[in-house]
Amino acid sequence: MEKTLIINSGSSSLKFKLFAIPTEDVLASGLIDRISIKGSSVTVKYNGQKYHQELPIPDHAFAVDLLLKLLVELHLIKDLNEITAVGHRVVAGGEYFDHSVVIDDDVIQKIAELSDLARLHNPANLLGIKVFKKLLPNALAVASFDTAYHHSIPEKNYLYSVPFEWYEKYGVRRYGAHGISHRYVARQAASLMNKPLKELKLITCHLGAGSSLCAVKDGKSFDTTMGFTPLTGVTMATRSGDVDVELVTYMMKKLNITDPEEMISILTRHSGLLGISGISSDMRDVIAAKDAGNKRAQIAVTLFVKNIVRYIGQYYAEMKGLDGIVFTAGIGENSDVIRKLVCDELEFMGVKLDDTLNSKGEEGFITKPDSKIAALLVPTDEELMISRDIEVIKLQEQKEISSKKPLL
Amino acid sequence: MEKTLIINSGSSSLKFKLFAIPTEDVLASGLIDRISIKGSSVTVKYNGQKYHQELPIPDHAFAVDLLLKLLVELHLIKDLNEITAVGHRVVAGGEYFDHSVVIDDDVIQKIAELSDLARLHNPANLLGIKVFKKLLPNALAVASFDTAYHHSIPEKNYLYSVPFEWYEKYGVRRYGAHGISHRYVARQAASLMNKPLKELKLITCHLGAGSSLCAVKDGKSFDTTMGFTPLTGVTMATRSGDVDVELVTYMMKKLNITDPEEMISILTRHSGLLGISGISSDMRDVIAAKDAGNKRAQIAVTLFVKNIVRYIGQYYAEMKGLDGIVFTAGIGENSDVIRKLVCDELEFMGVKLDDTLNSKGEEGFITKPDSKIAALLVPTDEELMISRDIEVIKLQEQKEISSKKPLL
Repeated sequence: MEKTLIINSGSSSLKFKLFAIPTEDVLASGLIDRISIKGSSVTVKYNGQKYHQELPIPDHAFAVDLLLKLLVELHLIKDLNEITAVGHRVVAGGEYFDHSVVIDDDVIQKIAELSDLARLHNPANLLGIKVFKKLLPNALAVASFDTAYHHSIPEKNYLYSVPFEWYEKYGVRRYGAHGISHRYVARQAASLMNKPLKELKLITCHLGAGSSLCAVKDGKSFDTTMGFTPLTGVTMATRSGDVDVELVTYMMKKLNITDPEEMISILTRHSGLLGISGISSDMRDVIAAKDAGNKRAQIAVTLFVKNIVRYIGQYYAEMKGLDGIVFTAGIGENSDVIRKLVCDELEFMGVKLDDTLNSKGEEGFITKPDSKIAALLVPTDEELMISRDIEVIKLQEQKEISSKKPLL
Repeated sequence: MEKTLIINSGSSSLKFKLFAIPTEDVLASGLIDRISIKGSSVTVKYNGQKYHQELPIPDHAFAVDLLLKLLVELHLIKDLNEITAVGHRVVAGGEYFDHSVVIDDDVIQKIAELSDLARLHNPANLLGIKVFKKLLPNALAVASFDTAYHHSIPEKNYLYSVPFEWYEKYGVRRYGAHGISHRYVARQAASLMNKPLKELKLITCHLGAGSSLCAVKDGKSFDTTMGFTPLTGVTMATRSGDVDVELVTYMMKKLNITDPEEMISILTRHSGLLGISGISSDMRDVIAAKDAGNKRAQIAVTLFVKNIVRYIGQYYAEMKGLDGIVFTAGIGENSDVIRKLVCDELEFMGVKLDDTLNSKGEEGFITKPDSKIAALLVPTDEELMISRDIEVIKLQEQKEISSKKPLL
């Protein structure tokens, strides 16, 4: 049986999911955590069981080697040749990549070049790619980019009103993120709505630790809340989302900070739900505190909802209409409270929440059948999306081979 | 006859308008330009005539003295006692001022204190206030704040998702601007629509060199596009409007800039229409270039319109509905092209432009009678608004005096 391994390689972690192909059954998933940091460990979930071990993991090479040995040891694969493809999630694809691609030297060079746009992520993604290339030289290696789906965003939605040369020379524009997730849930929602995605105007709300919304029109990303970097857009767990850029210089003076990077760090790590509530970056904690009467937690929830609602209004105007709103990711899938708060604000537009469906928390509609604009819950599955991209690539490669045959 | 003088004092200029009270006739208006700079001059328009003189004007005290002498010389006032009130436009009122106030020592101290929020404007406003206080000690001195109208914006629309202490300790929040203009045109629009302002949901679009939109609900400002500073929001003549804050640190490296203030300066002076088009900060030039086939001018116009449309969508969602869109200020009043481009984008929401009315460029409706959402052109008059505030203050003072009488 063919097996596809999907990898999300971070600077000190490596997440994976092993699929059986073509059944798409998840054979195993897990995490190698704290690579090169004290307290490193490996966790593999499979067949309802969990394997966990703490051991020193000095680097990514060691981590990948460990993972592959474990997959054999736990009888998840017979030998390494069973893994016929490895899909890598890559954060920044810049303007180069509008779809998933087979990784060759040119792709590797471009991912490295784009590290400027994702200073932590791309080099970590590359680490994973290189180690797997070495240990599984015969497996098809594919890169799926978090930005690729947003390649279809029109100029008017990706340009900033800054000196045009900044775009031409330095690539300053909206790139967005969470593209693999937005693409997956948009397709899934269209299927649930029983309509071709191309005929729908959707807003997909990926609400997790990082959050972004995507306007999906003509089956493609039309706009998204994250911008040049994933710092902007809606309120996130610890990220500020949109702010007035002059805050930075004003607060630098107030806080006696001389390096603007330090300000970016505060806006990235100490803002959002955490910064407003002062309690937690986890929506569950914030909602609990709000329910217990904490005023700042109440404000945090209100701002979180408000920023989603305002972008839904914006995308409604940009797309000239709206058929469906899709909730996904940690908060989107699990917080009926947030889904209800958002939908209630949009009741005037014709969003009729079905409280019973909403509280169930299952994939499908959460609005009533006569809701003018539908709302749906769709659990995201970025790994499955990457795995499906790999199958498409395999098919294309077969076609290319067969179309070349007559020439031989 | 009583006369009211309205002053807009900048760092090197002083604009004025002289009203007859209570008729509200404009007796004179003009500008003292390039104060303390080579090539300074004074211009007074009155009775269809224009007085212009170039002469050295070393400072604001000289400028005000010159202006008052000229008003007498040109027989616009008999003597200085005829000017019974002076209204000063002040840019930043922070959280202190939600309406126009009589200027006393406390007000002066607070305007000075708020200079942090408007480093160029507030000190210049104060210069004017002090000189007039000295030269016209008996006139009622009133300050009208550009931010005051936005005092009614609810917490969820003025807070950023940043550490809450930044708001509590350092006043980091949305303050907005153009409040005097938004307030004036909202009232005027309601009057034209023949409905109480309190029952209307309006979006007022002040589109000039600086541009901002204001969502007006329950007769009050509910949200506005300018934020902590007037740099943010929609695309402006030379200001960028909203950008990803990480642009700043990224471009600092690319341009070898070490001072983030220099970046703010580029975003303030070399962005917007000018930065995108590379041609001009003046919408008339940009539209002309677009019509001549210039691609970057086309993009500049498209971005300008897009950013207005997206905020209209946002405010539609925030206010849960929309009755009217009001265009004002240089571009809003004079560019039928821009008004048409914006309204056409909103046709799907029920905005039915009347091309004939729109091309007339006169105060009133520019949409057809059966337009679900009305659009109007309303020339702004910030000086008149300030003058009316002064009359209200006079009435209140009379009431206070008369209500105190029985106690004597």
